[in-house]
Amino acid sequence: MQKIAVVKIGGQVIEDSKLLDAFLSQLADVSMPLILVHGGGKSATQMATKLGVTTVMNDGRRVTDAVMLEIVTMVYGGLANKNIVANLQHKGKNALGLSGADACMIRATKRAAEPFDFGFVGDINPESFNLDFLQLLLNQQIMPVLAPLSYDGKGGLLNTNADTIAANLAIGLGSFYQVQLLYCFEKTGVLTDSTDENTLVRKLNKNLYSQLCTARAVHQGMIPKLKNAFFALENGVSMVGIGHFERLNNILQNNHYTDFTKLEH
Amino acid sequence: MQKIAVVKIGGQVIEDSKLLDAFLSQLADVSMPLILVHGGGKSATQMATKLGVTTVMNDGRRVTDAVMLEIVTMVYGGLANKNIVANLQHKGKNALGLSGADACMIRATKRAAEPFDFGFVGDINPESFNLDFLQLLLNQQIMPVLAPLSYDGKGGLLNTNADTIAANLAIGLGSFYQVQLLYCFEKTGVLTDSTDENTLVRKLNKNLYSQLCTARAVHQGMIPKLKNAFFALENGVSMVGIGHFERLNNILQNNHYTDFTKLEH
Repeated sequence: MQKIAVVKIGGQVIEDSKLLDAFLSQLADVSMPLILVHGGGKSATQMATKLGVTTVMNDGRRVTDAVMLEIVTMVYGGLANKNIVANLQHKGKNALGLSGADACMIRATKRAAEPFDFGFVGDINPESFNLDFLQLLLNQQIMPVLAPLSYDGKGGLLNTNADTIAANLAIGLGSFYQVQLLYCFEKTGVLTDSTDENTLVRKLNKNLYSQLCTARAVHQGMIPKLKNAFFALENGVSMVGIGHFERLNNILQNNHYTDFTKLEH
Repeated sequence: MQKIAVVKIGGQVIEDSKLLDAFLSQLADVSMPLILVHGGGKSATQMATKLGVTTVMNDGRRVTDAVMLEIVTMVYGGLANKNIVANLQHKGKNALGLSGADACMIRATKRAAEPFDFGFVGDINPESFNLDFLQLLLNQQIMPVLAPLSYDGKGGLLNTNADTIAANLAIGLGSFYQVQLLYCFEKTGVLTDSTDENTLVRKLNKNLYSQLCTARAVHQGMIPKLKNAFFALENGVSMVGIGHFERLNNILQNNHYTDFTKLEH
């Protein structure tokens, strides 16, 4: 099967144009077919503040009421997505930005209001994607750039976690490609001491992950990302890695990042 | 040659979700292949006001500095474009939103700073479009929805008039299709008295247009639109019409709108 990589970028990198440019330069140098999934970082919160809108978080996740949905649609689907695409075009990559509504790319179900009402937030699964159209784009040497917005099937958009989109998309593509799922962020990988890059965990399996969680050696905010990583690995994704956004080639060359591995039996 | 229509919508219709919904319902009922080009109306100005940013206009056109470019990218490329696409999906039309950077769809040249510096504004011509990719979408029964943002070839976006995009795109497509160019707005067509729908000009040629301009019977703001209409008609577009957004079928059925005609010799 052909190799393909699903790359997730978010956090500070999206918020800082210099960091983003450095990351996109790396991305543009990769010769294998790629799909980029981006988050929005704190950009939506910053825009909300400028607009006098209060951001409500619950357990680290954004509550998306109607006004916040407008803001994330503008910021993720417009500002972030289009600037990434324009930057990639300049670096010689023919990119195309997509929200979940475009070509019905990502369908989702609005999350139930119980036990907590997150508002316009969508839940997805590996069957949520228009893989036919993605393959058509890839066959045209076009790099799809997915914003973290899904389509509710009823004329509306839903805010959807980009880590989750990347994991589910990688699983969905697993039927057609040998898929690598790469989470890129500001650290070298999973660190047992988040202030010390020398504490990189090079191989992470579920047993070690449990031990690290018990020892509180893994930062709380990392846990959903790591859960997504294992979920992908257990569902047909051939390789899952997490590493530094400026060292994408390290990850692709299997060198100096956290590589998720299945438990050995 | 296959028939195709380029439909432009803007103004109040974009600003009002009920009007927009009524228009998109009409659009979704058309069976021929369509490309939709949308403007942003006053939505960018409203967002600028909310953000405390002053909108500067010159001769009826927006001056787009770096902050205003961010706003139009958010509002046109994000909010307006994605809501239109999601609405069309719900009405059974498989739509795909595009800025000028996506698949390098609309290339432009930044307008010279003399005689007046409009900032990040792009000028285009009929060769500006990625027609190969548009045809690929149309062959997949996908309706392209173009935001009024072009790509500068250097990693940036440019604000670009949607009427001009529609006219130039219609001309560009004229080599491959029998193209109808339809400008939809809040009136029945060109009216000699803008307060009286009974003064509809059903056939408008350049002589009559000159007479109406001399008599100041055409609203100032309509003149660029009408110039674009004649430009398209004179450059291979088979039919150019302007009419009411809720009566798209009237235009397509050659009934009750302003039809632009060449001078008879």
